[in-house]
Amino acid sequence: MDFLGQFLQDFVKQLQSPTLGFLIGGMVIAALGSQLQIPDAIYKFIIFMLLMKVGLSGGIAIRSSNLQEMLLPALFAVVMGILIVFIGRYTLAKLPKVKTVDAIATAGLFGAVSGSTMAAALTALEAQKISYEPWAAALYPFMDIPALVTAIVVASIYLKKKQAKKAPTSPSAVGAYAGSGSTTGYVSSTSEYPTTASEYRSQQSKRVRIWPIVKESLQGAALSALLLGVALGILTRPDSVYESFYNPLFRGLLSVLMLVMGMEAWSRLGELRKVAQWYVVYAVVAPLVHGLIAFGLGMIAHYVTGFSLGGVVILAVIACSSSDISGPPTLRAGIPSANPSAYIGASTAIGTPIAIGLGIPLYLGLAQAIMAGS
Amino acid sequence: MDFLGQFLQDFVKQLQSPTLGFLIGGMVIAALGSQLQIPDAIYKFIIFMLLMKVGLSGGIAIRSSNLQEMLLPALFAVVMGILIVFIGRYTLAKLPKVKTVDAIATAGLFGAVSGSTMAAALTALEAQKISYEPWAAALYPFMDIPALVTAIVVASIYLKKKQAKKAPTSPSAVGAYAGSGSTTGYVSSTSEYPTTASEYRSQQSKRVRIWPIVKESLQGAALSALLLGVALGILTRPDSVYESFYNPLFRGLLSVLMLVMGMEAWSRLGELRKVAQWYVVYAVVAPLVHGLIAFGLGMIAHYVTGFSLGGVVILAVIACSSSDISGPPTLRAGIPSANPSAYIGASTAIGTPIAIGLGIPLYLGLAQAIMAGS
Amino acid sequence: MDFLGQFLQDFVKQLQSPTLGFLIGGMVIAALGSQLQIPDAIYKFIIFMLLMKVGLSGGIAIRSSNLQEMLLPALFAVVMGILIVFIGRYTLAKLPKVKTVDAIATAGLFGAVSGSTMAAALTALEAQKISYEPWAAALYPFMDIPALVTAIVVASIYLKKKQAKKAPTSPSAVGAYAGSGSTTGYVSSTSEYPTTASEYRSQQSKRVRIWPIVKESLQGAALSALLLGVALGILTRPDSVYESFYNPLFRGLLSVLMLVMGMEAWSRLGELRKVAQWYVVYAVVAPLVHGLIAFGLGMIAHYVTGFSLGGVVILAVIACSSSDISGPPTLRAGIPSANPSAYIGASTAIGTPIAIGLGIPLYLGLAQAIMAGS
Repeated sequence: MDFLGQFLQDFVKQLQSPTLGFLIGGMVIAALGSQLQIPDAIYKFIIFMLLMKVGLSGGIAIRSSNLQEMLLPALFAVVMGILIVFIGRYTLAKLPKVKTVDAIATAGLFGAVSGSTMAAALTALEAQKISYEPWAAALYPFMDIPALVTAIVVASIYLKKKQAKKAPTSPSAVGAYAGSGSTTGYVSSTSEYPTTASEYRSQQSKRVRIWPIVKESLQGAALSALLLGVALGILTRPDSVYESFYNPLFRGLLSVLMLVMGMEAWSRLGELRKVAQWYVVYAVVAPLVHGLIAFGLGMIAHYVTGFSLGGVVILAVIACSSSDISGPPTLRAGIPSANPSAYIGASTAIGTPIAIGLGIPLYLGLAQAIMAGS
Repeated sequence: MDFLGQFLQDFVKQLQSPTLGFLIGGMVIAALGSQLQIPDAIYKFIIFMLLMKVGLSGGIAIRSSNLQEMLLPALFAVVMGILIVFIGRYTLAKLPKVKTVDAIATAGLFGAVSGSTMAAALTALEAQKISYEPWAAALYPFMDIPALVTAIVVASIYLKKKQAKKAPTSPSAVGAYAGSGSTTGYVSSTSEYPTTASEYRSQQSKRVRIWPIVKESLQGAALSALLLGVALGILTRPDSVYESFYNPLFRGLLSVLMLVMGMEAWSRLGELRKVAQWYVVYAVVAPLVHGLIAFGLGMIAHYVTGFSLGGVVILAVIACSSSDISGPPTLRAGIPSANPSAYIGASTAIGTPIAIGLGIPLYLGLAQAIMAGS
Repeated sequence: MDFLGQFLQDFVKQLQSPTLGFLIGGMVIAALGSQLQIPDAIYKFIIFMLLMKVGLSGGIAIRSSNLQEMLLPALFAVVMGILIVFIGRYTLAKLPKVKTVDAIATAGLFGAVSGSTMAAALTALEAQKISYEPWAAALYPFMDIPALVTAIVVASIYLKKKQAKKAPTSPSAVGAYAGSGSTTGYVSSTSEYPTTASEYRSQQSKRVRIWPIVKESLQGAALSALLLGVALGILTRPDSVYESFYNPLFRGLLSVLMLVMGMEAWSRLGELRKVAQWYVVYAVVAPLVHGLIAFGLGMIAHYVTGFSLGGVVILAVIACSSSDISGPPTLRAGIPSANPSAYIGASTAIGTPIAIGLGIPLYLGLAQAIMAGS
């Protein structure tokens, strides 16, 4: 009972944290019809500041780290990114009234990572004085990119099989490319639908190109800022500017971001009404399950290579989180036939609040209970 | 003479404060045609940061306060909000060439409160090391909302009486609703003017609906941020983020805001030329008079319930201030027939600089002289 | 050899500084196609914050300075501003395929000063603990304005001579005024081309009006912020807000600005391809030469009036820098027939990175070597 007692105590403490307070505050004022707005320019700059800070601290840490330690957690991050998509493919996608492509896209977004949620987790760990490997934040892309790539590949394979059955009578959405200004399609089909059986067969043998998806993920604003921070942390001496600027402003800017995310979550709730209610169930349950699986994998790394419990919490939280910034545009371009109301609504309106409000306290409480027990 | 000497000395000191320096600097560079601009996104974010800080510190204080102390000052704040509108109704509105509805709207704006001016007063009090009840900033809505409600109600009653005289021959501006996206009218008349005497009589018996005005005030960006801060201060534990972010950035952001307000004041001067010059006289004299009345009421609370002299200064300054952010849109929607050039020009171009440049040093000097005398 | 060794060591150290790291980082992520963006509102606010900080610290310093000391360095700043334009007029403009007006405009921009580069130099001096007169930053307008005025006057004289040869057969670009909303032309010709010889002669006798150019320079956002800061520093007591806000945020905001400038430099590289490749040569060589001349003049002031070596570095860096914010619009309005691709491309894509990446370490190394040698 000591385990449960400790856990509940920490859980309640987390609910009072400023991070969560601002998130809920944002929801409440949005619900009350407040006209408060954080301008978009400020929002984008805050994202930049937070991820640059996380990247810099990671990069500075990596300079003096033993990178071999990172291997197993990084592998588990990749595994989680791929696994989450398949979980969605064989649960959400099988539910009644749920369109398969929408479900795959949603699972891709839930496999991808939210920089804001990760930032909230780092703050919570520091507030609880639980130490973690500073490179742990650099696990982000190891889960984010595989999840998005897997989702787009799985959707593409599904759509091709569907085409094969219907073909060659009806045109398909595969390759219908909504994005403008993009030079490479994510799937190998040409924009003209094949009109003869031989064309069709030759096309089917082509494979989904993965590199453009990886590239687009890396070029997104969130991952660029994070990786630039890591690179600057490793290659230059940014310690003075990190200590005087990025680090002290981190918590405060995070509180503003949480407010924005709370308001955004509320405003996106309406979009969920347009899709099957199963998305709500998935958006509540799946993040916590993903996080628990990742927590388990993290514990394996804990016993095998000494991965810290703080690191285990970070791995669990990034598995629990769903992408809110970089993921949606990549998915919109990669799976143009999926309905954005489904995946953005589920992620922003429910997934993120669940990850911050329940996920972080849950994994933190678990880690503290394990620490207290050992 | 010691009283006057002390007062003059503090007055001069205030004129050299950075707050006032930036305000005057903004006016000067605007007058010289500078192309310097503080982007609108930054301006809005600064307002948010200042009012969130004021709200948080109020909320944190209220947690450990005896709220009974707040009763009398809050009552006086309500009284001042209502009184200022009636002062304007029976002075400004009676002057030649001044349209009555314009005068009532102007009085409403001068009764409403400026978050920026209040922030400047808090900074001045801290610089002078004069203590005040931290909940004093929470007096803001107790004056702001009654002033706006009273102005809209008084204007509505005036317009109805005017209609009654002219009716039923000419259409009236009451109920002509300029705002878009608003779902409730502020006055009970329907948008169609009544065409028969019976319709007219039934309409006249309806009352002005007050709740929508109160709601719109509370939903405004300024009051939302302030009240959200108060709520977060009471209900969560935001002390760490307050100490590391909102509090240290307060003075600096205020200096930038003062610069913007100075530039804005200069650019609005032209609007005053479009209306009767009596607005200039009112905008110079009324704020100082309102502040002095509130100072007197505050002194009553000082002797009766021990309200601090710093608190008295805050009460006087919020009475002296005129709304620059939240008030104008509410008035534009609530008294659509009033001329915005009159009330916005008078408030932004003259009222606010007078409140910050003369009001704050005046009430601060009075308080210091009383302290020195006792 | 000790001199050279010391110099190289400091040079390498500078290359690792966060300032340069963020600049190069910006170029790299832009080259890799990152979608990271720092919103324009943030960019403008950062410029304001940096120049206000530099101005305030200058103004606070001037309060307790012996202004006579400033005379010789200020004179040298004016000399450099004029000299740089004439260097460009008799080198770049004489090269094959280079249009004379384009070359004069480019030289004007390279004579004008970059607030960001100066800010980077001040940071580098502080990091190296090299002292300098705080008023040294106030040398900025003494070089900036003469350079822009000289460029516009020289271009105007050149175009008039060209007209005189061709006249009266072809219309000319002089006086064709691209800017909108501007009320005074920079050159005396009327917009209608003179059709008779007598009109032509009378026009030629008119002189280029200098005051509008000076005024426009002073009204630009960058110089307004700097000079307002100086004025507030001298006339008010902004020390508290300077210490709590402008000073601590300086380095961090500079790092963000450097990132933006790196991205901007990369995106402007393409523009250089449109003009003669000699611009690339000029943009690499000229800044370093300008800085070395100014360094020499600074050393004269060092021996004559005791101008500090840190001050000499600042004089050299502002001569080395080329204007990126305030200069281009002034030149666009003042020399409308010049091609902006030439001067903006050369300055932003090459001049600024050269000044920050090579100029600052070079002059800093020189100063340190002189200090070590004496």
